[in-house]
Amino acid sequence: MISVGVLGATGAVGQRFVELLADHPWFDLTLLTASDRSAGKKYGSVVDWRLESALPEKARDILISPTTVDTIRKVDLVFSALPSEIAGDLELSCAQAGVGVCSNASANRMRPEVPLVVPEVNPDHLGLIDVQRDKGVNGFVVTNPNCSTIMMTMSLAPLRKFSYSSIQVATMQAISGAGFNGVAAMAIYDNVIPYIGQEEEKMELETLKIMGSLEGGEVKNALVDVSASCHRVPVIDGHTMALWLNIKEDPERVREAFRAFNPPISGLPTQPTSSVYLHDADNRPQPRLDRMRGRGMTVSVGRIRKGLRYVAMGHNTIRGAAGASILNAELIVSRKYL
Amino acid sequence: MISVGVLGATGAVGQRFVELLADHPWFDLTLLTASDRSAGKKYGSVVDWRLESALPEKARDILISPTTVDTIRKVDLVFSALPSEIAGDLELSCAQAGVGVCSNASANRMRPEVPLVVPEVNPDHLGLIDVQRDKGVNGFVVTNPNCSTIMMTMSLAPLRKFSYSSIQVATMQAISGAGFNGVAAMAIYDNVIPYIGQEEEKMELETLKIMGSLEGGEVKNALVDVSASCHRVPVIDGHTMALWLNIKEDPERVREAFRAFNPPISGLPTQPTSSVYLHDADNRPQPRLDRMRGRGMTVSVGRIRKGLRYVAMGHNTIRGAAGASILNAELIVSRKYL
Amino acid sequence: MISVGVLGATGAVGQRFVELLADHPWFDLTLLTASDRSAGKKYGSVVDWRLESALPEKARDILISPTTVDTIRKVDLVFSALPSEIAGDLELSCAQAGVGVCSNASANRMRPEVPLVVPEVNPDHLGLIDVQRDKGVNGFVVTNPNCSTIMMTMSLAPLRKFSYSSIQVATMQAISGAGFNGVAAMAIYDNVIPYIGQEEEKMELETLKIMGSLEGGEVKNALVDVSASCHRVPVIDGHTMALWLNIKEDPERVREAFRAFNPPISGLPTQPTSSVYLHDADNRPQPRLDRMRGRGMTVSVGRIRKGLRYVAMGHNTIRGAAGASILNAELIVSRKYL
Amino acid sequence: MISVGVLGATGAVGQRFVELLADHPWFDLTLLTASDRSAGKKYGSVVDWRLESALPEKARDILISPTTVDTIRKVDLVFSALPSEIAGDLELSCAQAGVGVCSNASANRMRPEVPLVVPEVNPDHLGLIDVQRDKGVNGFVVTNPNCSTIMMTMSLAPLRKFSYSSIQVATMQAISGAGFNGVAAMAIYDNVIPYIGQEEEKMELETLKIMGSLEGGEVKNALVDVSASCHRVPVIDGHTMALWLNIKEDPERVREAFRAFNPPISGLPTQPTSSVYLHDADNRPQPRLDRMRGRGMTVSVGRIRKGLRYVAMGHNTIRGAAGASILNAELIVSRKYL
Repeated sequence: MISVGVLGATGAVGQRFVELLADHPWFDLTLLTASDRSAGKKYGSVVDWRLESALPEKARDILISPTTVDTIRKVDLVFSALPSEIAGDLELSCAQAGVGVCSNASANRMRPEVPLVVPEVNPDHLGLIDVQRDKGVNGFVVTNPNCSTIMMTMSLAPLRKFSYSSIQVATMQAISGAGFNGVAAMAIYDNVIPYIGQEEEKMELETLKIMGSLEGGEVKNALVDVSASCHRVPVIDGHTMALWLNIKEDPERVREAFRAFNPPISGLPTQPTSSVYLHDADNRPQPRLDRMRGRGMTVSVGRIRKGLRYVAMGHNTIRGAAGASILNAELIVSRKYL
Repeated sequence: MISVGVLGATGAVGQRFVELLADHPWFDLTLLTASDRSAGKKYGSVVDWRLESALPEKARDILISPTTVDTIRKVDLVFSALPSEIAGDLELSCAQAGVGVCSNASANRMRPEVPLVVPEVNPDHLGLIDVQRDKGVNGFVVTNPNCSTIMMTMSLAPLRKFSYSSIQVATMQAISGAGFNGVAAMAIYDNVIPYIGQEEEKMELETLKIMGSLEGGEVKNALVDVSASCHRVPVIDGHTMALWLNIKEDPERVREAFRAFNPPISGLPTQPTSSVYLHDADNRPQPRLDRMRGRGMTVSVGRIRKGLRYVAMGHNTIRGAAGASILNAELIVSRKYL
Repeated sequence: MISVGVLGATGAVGQRFVELLADHPWFDLTLLTASDRSAGKKYGSVVDWRLESALPEKARDILISPTTVDTIRKVDLVFSALPSEIAGDLELSCAQAGVGVCSNASANRMRPEVPLVVPEVNPDHLGLIDVQRDKGVNGFVVTNPNCSTIMMTMSLAPLRKFSYSSIQVATMQAISGAGFNGVAAMAIYDNVIPYIGQEEEKMELETLKIMGSLEGGEVKNALVDVSASCHRVPVIDGHTMALWLNIKEDPERVREAFRAFNPPISGLPTQPTSSVYLHDADNRPQPRLDRMRGRGMTVSVGRIRKGLRYVAMGHNTIRGAAGASILNAELIVSRKYL
Repeated sequence: MISVGVLGATGAVGQRFVELLADHPWFDLTLLTASDRSAGKKYGSVVDWRLESALPEKARDILISPTTVDTIRKVDLVFSALPSEIAGDLELSCAQAGVGVCSNASANRMRPEVPLVVPEVNPDHLGLIDVQRDKGVNGFVVTNPNCSTIMMTMSLAPLRKFSYSSIQVATMQAISGAGFNGVAAMAIYDNVIPYIGQEEEKMELETLKIMGSLEGGEVKNALVDVSASCHRVPVIDGHTMALWLNIKEDPERVREAFRAFNPPISGLPTQPTSSVYLHDADNRPQPRLDRMRGRGMTVSVGRIRKGLRYVAMGHNTIRGAAGASILNAELIVSRKYL
């Protein structure tokens, strides 16, 4: 068992990490960090647990540590659900101190030597860990993309063999993506908010790195133009998106590609049976009915039409955040980087 | 005063007609039709009134008529909120009988001699009434488009001077668009349904006719490729949509065009101060906050970005249905077709 | 293993039965019935599966049977999710034919010889099965109460030692209680409906039988006055209710009684760890956070205040319907009636 | 015209004040106060306007004043939407400075010399203004109750002639009652929160003062026992409540009393046609359909049943807050206190 911790364990994503790690077969959850005023108290007495599953017994009595390198170095690997403004330096310092960091924060995603990985899409980008090691870092920082970017790139993975140069994507994103207190009920009830700060920029930029190729210790960005329009809708969990790709092939060829998709990973505990699941019904995927497929790790696609148009959907705080980081960590272990 | 009636007056769109016509300065509401089992009863005793405004006093005591040509011919003009399967023949028969029909039903929209009109977009298409007259019809049938198509074509009206050949549009549509009982709460609550039957087809086809040119008694379809992806979201009223047009001009030029838009109509009672209103705030338009602008007749646009991308939104049962038909009728009167 | 079936397997409660029975340790699900037009088809091809968990593999390929005594008699036990209008006679006929019937339908609940059972409250009422047997019935009909009545009587079970003569209860009930299509989105969104047909009557009448005592082969109704006010609120699953009992004891004594509650059943597979769970936090129980406690079988209580007032909440389609019937069946098996 | 101001004009209740005062026939809105950092800026450039009606033109260009006695004394009358922690002293100081204060804040409601008034219930309590004057105060402070208390006491006004000693009330309150940012979407969506801080205490205490009698310059509390259970539900505007009164008379007598109610006020601009409206339909009142009755000033009641039970509902930010203060001010003017 590898001893692991969660940085920022009391927030929306932090709670998902705790939920998913409580019974993990490879990782032993022993460290939980939060703000200084919670340090020293039992996690169960401090956290305002908001998930439908019960607070795991294992986590209840863990004493919260402050979010400092000194306390973090006691474990082998940490999952970061820190706010971006403090994640940047701290994650790098942890790596310097020999700790592996799998981060959901955006701060370090675009650093050249930091892999931005979706296991089913670009597992080879973990090769950048060697670049970090060459610079004398004993640990590492590996990041996963923004939640919407994950759903989109997952849905693109089976389409590698088709040629296209542009992607247009309109998202309908869940309120949990903004954290427990990020969206006021008066703001989103009976409403759509056609703007999510920095979300379009992240989708347009991160996608190029993820879809890019690792050559000579550097990622060469993919040559595709991504144009995103991001919207918040009154849904609790599950980001839905409508996509257009300038693929000329018949939609049936695309359906076949989705059905035939064989991801380049295997044997990872958090990996779902189907990484990408193609729905045949006209009115699917739907967030409430399909977000928990594959314990929240499957990305659903459907409505493949000429255009080429389709709809993709996945659970934003599992597949799009905590589960993404954990799957990255499992890939790292399986590839012997830890 | 012109005596008018509403066909199918008890449904969602029918009630909006009654609400909007109760105090109309030109039209005197005297006829309300519904199914045979309601005929002969007072409207107020039969209708399950579901609008936030109170049932108008004027309508309360009108005795419901059956939906037959014989009763309809007593008025000069009727507004049709009939289901498409019965609207087709009945509307044509009414026109034959000398009654003007302004219809929100889809049945006759694509008939060559029937104008499909959005007053701010293609008022000259009313010229097709002359084609109907030439065929010996004393009344007329004039239709308005599907609700989503209206919002989209309204937002396109100020952009006529730009050159573009393709439109991609992802809609986030309100539940009222399906009628009072069209969507079950269990189906849409905490959910997105990525499919609305025949909606994409209507947007793709009707737009070509509306944007087309009337030449020699025929409408020549516009040459533009429309690709729609339609989704239902948990919003009561107000259809929001994200659009892409392959316009190369700077977004600021497009903003200027929206601000400068001067619609080709004036002096109509139901016409709003701004037919198309450009929002400057990043997070607008929003259905709950902006749908009632211009008493529900203004289409809001915002988030003009390179791409060219923008967001449009309007009230689907007012601007997108009952109000659209009434504005058509006002245009018809002002152009002396009645 | 006891071979079992579900009558009315495609509806909201029917699907919950299928979900909960798919991996049951005692019951082998082999029969699913639905309307005649579905008979002969595979369950997976007919059902519009609406639960967040996936359709169980086991059920997918079962061929649907018609809802007739002839097909039902092939199994030992059936769970009835039939509409009340057909449940009444059919359930009795099944019992005559030797089949055990655990019914969620209301039709037979108030028949003198039919037990109306909540296992934690009145397990001894199963003694009425002997009355049925004495009348020559080889099977049996056992019913569970209406969903709201179950939550209320469960919360009353720990309070037996207190004296009270009146109960006032205001419910805030979930939309799933009306079935998948029972409530239109336009009717309940941003709304409260202060009326649910026959619900108040059921709570007021069924409670008396459940809380009554079985003496000499008859249930003597409890002497308590129940006054209910039932409301529908925009919640998917989970009925919340505020109760007043004229108990004079200190609220702390009542809290102790809730904490000390030891239900009169044990060892049943569907029985939760805590049948009634007392929340200490001021703002609990909440349906979204607490409905899945005990896999949906725990009734949560909280806010015990002088008055005596408290709040109770439970999952209406699990604890309040399908799970209730299954727990009844387990009790029946454990007491050797099958 | 009486020059008036709004204290705390940018919040949820402040915006309602601005909306309702913009076209008032007696009051001329000239002063808007907000926090110091907004002072000196135009209201239209500072306020995040969240009402469905457009920001009134009249208010748009008013320069925001700081919330100090010096700026407030320039007007005759102010409406206070201040947070309670600053309302207490400031309102008293304004009254000392000769300004009339009609406050929606809770801080001064229970002071012996401050009237707590619902015009249709206890208009004579304005007599306490004389007590204030006797103490040398040139202005006055008059308060309206908490929103839920207003709906309840309004519904009790027609029932004065019946004898009862206890009230039990379960509320289902709208999210706007907590202000624009008071409830997170993740907290209330698909949920009920069975707790609102200090709400039950306010309903239980304020009611006694309002229903009490003014004798010799003092209010003698009513002798009635109020027991409240308060819950938040996913509704935007409109507080619904179920009540029990130990009235023994036949429900039909109570219905008659509701129908016959003649409020002790008349001729006030904000007063609705029906102060209390009795619905006959089983499933009414409903917040979405009935909250705007009487431009938001009517309290709807329905479902009068033996028990005695009934349901009451009203618009919490109009009848329950801003509209309540304005109606108080109109009453004060009509009674020559200003």
